[in-house]
Amino acid sequence: MDSVLGIDIGGNNFRIGIFDREGRRLDLSEGRTDSSGGREWMLNEIHKRSQSLIGKAGRQVQACGISFGGPVNYERQEVSSMHVSGWRGFDLARWVKEKLQLDCLVDNDANAGALGEFRYGAGRGTHSILYVTLSTGIGGGVVCEDKLLHGRDSLAGELGHVPMSVAGAPCSCGGRGCLETLCSGTAIGLRGRGLAKNNPELMARTIELSSGDPQAITAETIFRAAAEGDKGALFIVREATGWLARGLLAAIRILNPDRIILGGGVALAGKHLLDPLHEHLEALNAPTLKYSTQIAVAELGNYSPLYGAAALGWELA
Amino acid sequence: MDSVLGIDIGGNNFRIGIFDREGRRLDLSEGRTDSSGGREWMLNEIHKRSQSLIGKAGRQVQACGISFGGPVNYERQEVSSMHVSGWRGFDLARWVKEKLQLDCLVDNDANAGALGEFRYGAGRGTHSILYVTLSTGIGGGVVCEDKLLHGRDSLAGELGHVPMSVAGAPCSCGGRGCLETLCSGTAIGLRGRGLAKNNPELMARTIELSSGDPQAITAETIFRAAAEGDKGALFIVREATGWLARGLLAAIRILNPDRIILGGGVALAGKHLLDPLHEHLEALNAPTLKYSTQIAVAELGNYSPLYGAAALGWELA
Repeated sequence: MDSVLGIDIGGNNFRIGIFDREGRRLDLSEGRTDSSGGREWMLNEIHKRSQSLIGKAGRQVQACGISFGGPVNYERQEVSSMHVSGWRGFDLARWVKEKLQLDCLVDNDANAGALGEFRYGAGRGTHSILYVTLSTGIGGGVVCEDKLLHGRDSLAGELGHVPMSVAGAPCSCGGRGCLETLCSGTAIGLRGRGLAKNNPELMARTIELSSGDPQAITAETIFRAAAEGDKGALFIVREATGWLARGLLAAIRILNPDRIILGGGVALAGKHLLDPLHEHLEALNAPTLKYSTQIAVAELGNYSPLYGAAALGWELA
Repeated sequence: MDSVLGIDIGGNNFRIGIFDREGRRLDLSEGRTDSSGGREWMLNEIHKRSQSLIGKAGRQVQACGISFGGPVNYERQEVSSMHVSGWRGFDLARWVKEKLQLDCLVDNDANAGALGEFRYGAGRGTHSILYVTLSTGIGGGVVCEDKLLHGRDSLAGELGHVPMSVAGAPCSCGGRGCLETLCSGTAIGLRGRGLAKNNPELMARTIELSSGDPQAITAETIFRAAAEGDKGALFIVREATGWLARGLLAAIRILNPDRIILGGGVALAGKHLLDPLHEHLEALNAPTLKYSTQIAVAELGNYSPLYGAAALGWELA
């Protein structure tokens, strides 16, 4: 009757859960991140809520895993600056040890999400996956032969920053034409707003679904219009999934994983994302290099990183 | 005083060696592949020469590893059709067991090359490498956490078929715009001959080095002219290494290996390949995603797959 504590520290939300060895979530405490509160506010919330969860768990809590929404040097177990101040170089695992008396393993949210889906979600039964988060940006994590692949600089799985287009748009990373600039939620929304400006009639239904405001168009409203068969929205989805297909094919050629799992807000579009994506992949496929890598949507939704945090905890327990 | 037998079966050459546990080559027998002789001729050569090497080895030969110059389904240990007839579905390991009384492990030449460089060449001291062969085509193999990564369909490491250019040239794989169509030895030679046709004055020195025949221009003569500082040749090298840099960056973003090792005929250009490649990578690098993956040239030259075959043998011994 053991358990572990899993913690997901994200820019918008934070989540804390108690999990058993089979990955069942026994208890949960979650809330919105107050980024103005900085590190201290977040640590205080975690401390308070974790103590409460541990107190009422009714079984021994053996270890802790943390998914951190920012760069983590896994080898040094060092978290880095998020958009929230105070985290740079902070020894989060030591803090957990001191405050909660639990050994702790920390990884970034993309890796934790990959591990969560691999152990408890859409990756169950495979030996290798690429997990891709399609949200504001594009992140990713790789599991190879049942283990997270971190890479030399803890940068493995950064599919969002594969260079795709030679004359592409500037990317948040400082590069140009990265996959993220072409098919992240942000990129899709931006494309929709651009098209609405120049061709409002083409985007009429998407504008309607965006409260009538062309500037309120997001990837979500575009996918909703596309689901209704709207021509303009379908055009944008087709374009974005074309780039995504090329990015995933690059990963298939290099890793050839058992499964690619798409998470993040954009993946909530489900078949409206997968259907055009499969069409593009089919068109790109080469007969002499037939692969059987499957493409699936994340099963744990927004909770993939939290489940991955639990899996990290179990690596210590 | 143990040893293993390593065999490299290639389209142009075949090589057989006896290796000790440290990867020292104790004896070697090699020759040109007579492709008109088909499978039977090759097996006969291997049988004869292997028996001779084993007979005079003076130490026990414990197992055998084979690098095969064609697709290998590693899981099923099944070799597939090369350009030479008779190999499709042939159980090479069983043949070795029957004829030479040695357990045997078979892999394709790109994977064997990766393993050879990892264990005994430019990858020594690392935990993960991507090995890339730049020759007629572009092949590759991945070592992750000290083990070859095969992938679900034995297709991992196929960097040559990462899609790079949307409106690119048709590729031998049936795809379009693959990395291989942009910077393989074949592609570089083709580009040189095309430029020589339209701008002979620009390619004057390369034509000279190609026995005065513009149609005899190859990647090799282009790199030789580039090494002399010839403007036209440098232009082609700069263009090809630009594509190669983008391909390698894709692999760095996805795998972030300790080292990328470039082998094959084109890599013999050494610094004349590496210098422009590093310039391109520097220009593409994003400040927020600084990686320390190193780029090196293969140390074992044409013998990387043979050394890898020996390493495969040692996995059984």
